Amino acid sequence: MTAITATNPATGSALEPVASEMSAAEVTAVVEAAAASADWLADLPRTERAALLGAMADALEGARDEIVATADEETGLGSTRLNGELTRTVFQLRFFGEVITEGSYLEVTLDSAGDTPMGPRPDLRRMLVPTGVVAVFGASNFPLAFSVPGGDTASALAAGCPVVVKAHPSHPATSVLCHRLMSEAATAQGAPAGVFGLVHGQEAGVVLVKAPQVTAVGFTGSTGGGKALMAAIAERENPIPFFGELSSLNPVVVTPGAAAARAADIGAGLATSVSGSSGQLCTKPNLVLVPTGADGDAVVAALAENLQQATTVPLLNERIRSSYTELTDGLASVPGVRPVVRMEAEGEGFRVGPAVFEIDADTLGAETSKEIFGPATMVVRWSGPEQLDQALETLEDSLTATVQTSGQEGEELQGLTRLLQGHAGRILFDAYPTGVAVSWAQHHGGPWPATNTQHTSVGASAIRRWLRPVVFQNAPQSVLPAELRDDATDVPRRVDGRLVLPGA
Amino acid sequence: MTAITATNPATGSALEPVASEMSAAEVTAVVEAAAASADWLADLPRTERAALLGAMADALEGARDEIVATADEETGLGSTRLNGELTRTVFQLRFFGEVITEGSYLEVTLDSAGDTPMGPRPDLRRMLVPTGVVAVFGASNFPLAFSVPGGDTASALAAGCPVVVKAHPSHPATSVLCHRLMSEAATAQGAPAGVFGLVHGQEAGVVLVKAPQVTAVGFTGSTGGGKALMAAIAERENPIPFFGELSSLNPVVVTPGAAAARAADIGAGLATSVSGSSGQLCTKPNLVLVPTGADGDAVVAALAENLQQATTVPLLNERIRSSYTELTDGLASVPGVRPVVRMEAEGEGFRVGPAVFEIDADTLGAETSKEIFGPATMVVRWSGPEQLDQALETLEDSLTATVQTSGQEGEELQGLTRLLQGHAGRILFDAYPTGVAVSWAQHHGGPWPATNTQHTSVGASAIRRWLRPVVFQNAPQSVLPAELRDDATDVPRRVDGRLVLPGA
Repeated sequence: MTAITATNPATGSALEPVASEMSAAEVTAVVEAAAASADWLADLPRTERAALLGAMADALEGARDEIVATADEETGLGSTRLNGELTRTVFQLRFFGEVITEGSYLEVTLDSAGDTPMGPRPDLRRMLVPTGVVAVFGASNFPLAFSVPGGDTASALAAGCPVVVKAHPSHPATSVLCHRLMSEAATAQGAPAGVFGLVHGQEAGVVLVKAPQVTAVGFTGSTGGGKALMAAIAERENPIPFFGELSSLNPVVVTPGAAAARAADIGAGLATSVSGSSGQLCTKPNLVLVPTGADGDAVVAALAENLQQATTVPLLNERIRSSYTELTDGLASVPGVRPVVRMEAEGEGFRVGPAVFEIDADTLGAETSKEIFGPATMVVRWSGPEQLDQALETLEDSLTATVQTSGQEGEELQGLTRLLQGHAGRILFDAYPTGVAVSWAQHHGGPWPATNTQHTSVGASAIRRWLRPVVFQNAPQSVLPAELRDDATDVPRRVDGRLVLPGA
Repeated sequence: MTAITATNPATGSALEPVASEMSAAEVTAVVEAAAASADWLADLPRTERAALLGAMADALEGARDEIVATADEETGLGSTRLNGELTRTVFQLRFFGEVITEGSYLEVTLDSAGDTPMGPRPDLRRMLVPTGVVAVFGASNFPLAFSVPGGDTASALAAGCPVVVKAHPSHPATSVLCHRLMSEAATAQGAPAGVFGLVHGQEAGVVLVKAPQVTAVGFTGSTGGGKALMAAIAERENPIPFFGELSSLNPVVVTPGAAAARAADIGAGLATSVSGSSGQLCTKPNLVLVPTGADGDAVVAALAENLQQATTVPLLNERIRSSYTELTDGLASVPGVRPVVRMEAEGEGFRVGPAVFEIDADTLGAETSKEIFGPATMVVRWSGPEQLDQALETLEDSLTATVQTSGQEGEELQGLTRLLQGHAGRILFDAYPTGVAVSWAQHHGGPWPATNTQHTSVGASAIRRWLRPVVFQNAPQSVLPAELRDDATDVPRRVDGRLVLPGA
């Protein structure tokens, strides 16, 4: 039993271990308990499942101070950010309760028996059902919103799937605490013990994704970690869906008009977006594409000035810190790269200084367009729309792409939007990509490496990842799920091709 | 250039080659032309894309006799079946035109800017957009409905994705003919030449799924072939979604009450389902679970009697024929397996005789519960619900699972339905799984190996595989897709969480 020792990023000193790496047998037991609770959770009426999520939210809210203090000690993210993250996490649990109560997510579709141009058609009744046990991997940079009590957990439980979380080793105490609070709340709602499980250790994660009872995996983390899990999944007898968000460049394009009109504002906004949570956000702008010339120079100057004054927090762990140092040192030595800001770390622990580099668009390459986890960004100076498009086309796809406009771009903006839309899941205008609202329309995903391409990890439709369709043909009413019976009119339904609202 | 030589299954003689294996450069050129047409197709208004599909359907319908004759020569499936398949194929193209005209598939979702419990929220507008070029692999057993003009092609073009089909080598002439007819129809509608491509050869298929412009793959075929393509996809710099249907056992459970009430009918229905298209359907019952005792004996006897009198067609190709012979010979020599029917082939070409085996449920294992492509099935004799459940739990997951009932089962049927629902995508009652209606509610998919778990290859929602969400944040009206603008009310929309029907 190897203890999992986290470190306080603000001081660099080791914290008291609260968990140990789990053996394969221990992980298997957790997964089996989860599988044993699957029918209970799937059968729980939607309103009661919403109440379960609400009880979990209440339990977290009731321990706010303890959670924030514990998470701050393990992440150094600070109480303002962590209080905001807890608010979001609690909101998210309740929001998915609303989503399942509304019921559209079931995609209830009824085709009556009858004649068609293809011949006679039987009675068909389709809806989405939970896939079964879901494995969730906690992320280092969101100890709450993308970890034990996070969006993957909330959406999977809402879907009716038991969840087993693999805790991130950087915040084991926060994981254990949130897991205990939510498990107690679930038990008070009558849930079997296995419905929400927690495992620790890197090997435990591999055992988890290979467990026969696990039906889908949610992952937020590095491309390397994600690929290793995908390889483990490919070795299963029955490979399962992997929903991963692996990295993202999040380019921000500044138009010439925007640079002319709002250089100071844009520089300040960018600095906030690059430095918030010390740049440890999956939507942080890694590339800012600024036109050449005096107006563009003013944007870069404002970015540099604001970033030098920005307040940052220590990085989350030693690995992220050393990777940051290595990548920024590496960039500084690439021919054609001009360091604009390179500040030294001040204070103890895993602190680093922010960095801004600059490069000409025609020398941009794979080496100079990488995600750097931390308060650094690369300014790409471009001249003319062709050079801009060419630079954008060389980039890996992203979660987000942003345009800073003047409002006067006209048709050029349509072409640029179209180009960006092919390479990102969220397209922003005159805004900054960090900060992701949890809502019905939100989308947080995109083409590889911002996978899974077709789905999202934030927003109402995140629940779709943990559901699969089932159609009942010629079924007696007694065996149908409640929502497919003739007397069920409390959810939106498609009846013989026509969408019908509840009560209609 | 190796010519692709198909064989007439009814005679075993080689047909005149109409295509050759394509080089990597040739495949790349086809994919590049497809990619070059992506914007045109995505920008085509939905009603015009429906018209494009309709024109393709008309072109196929107009060449009905030639298509059926060509396909019959290459597949031996017979003109009745092939005429039915063409009707289905033509219907399917038009049906997806209806699906996109209706517009729900876009999942238009609008969140207004405003305050929320999480803080201020920006204006967010989400919809689904085409993923880009789609690769489709033709299946041997459906030269039309799951090949060049099939459901994957129809749903992908409807979604707005250019398609490149990898022709199945068993029916190259049918593939070339359908491709020519549909391409000419597309050209007449103003489509660029690349919007619908065709490639030939096994290596061409690998080059196709590795092409950087390809964004998703639809595949119907063997587990081995599917896994090889998945391995090729994993080697891509940017892995892409793979939607495969690899094999399926399609268990049919006969309850004691059903056996007592309808033995002769059930035996006859099963024989038709097992022997239709000579058992070369992905939903053919490979396992029939019949209770022990005299009533069950009567079901088996009726199945045997009807199957011995059934009319069959030759198998599709030499590989399927030799695999059928090998698997049925193998089963006959497994201890505990009792041959019930084993008929010799009559006539020339790839003809085989039907086969029925029988085994006791407590000796059922992996070796005796395999898919056999051809007119064979395994009867599993069970005694008591526990033994039935145990047998069902050992099986691989399936596209379908069927129960033959007496209508008097009561609560037992609910438990059985629940069990089957966990292992299949379509659950049938007092019906037979072969024959898949194309409709709004249809689902043709299931957990591995009936992948992709979360999606379907038949029915309206098959289109979902070729779409990905994009959300626009704070976007000016001018850059938004038509369906996301303020004045667009012709599709169902979710506005601030509330579903709104068109015109409301």
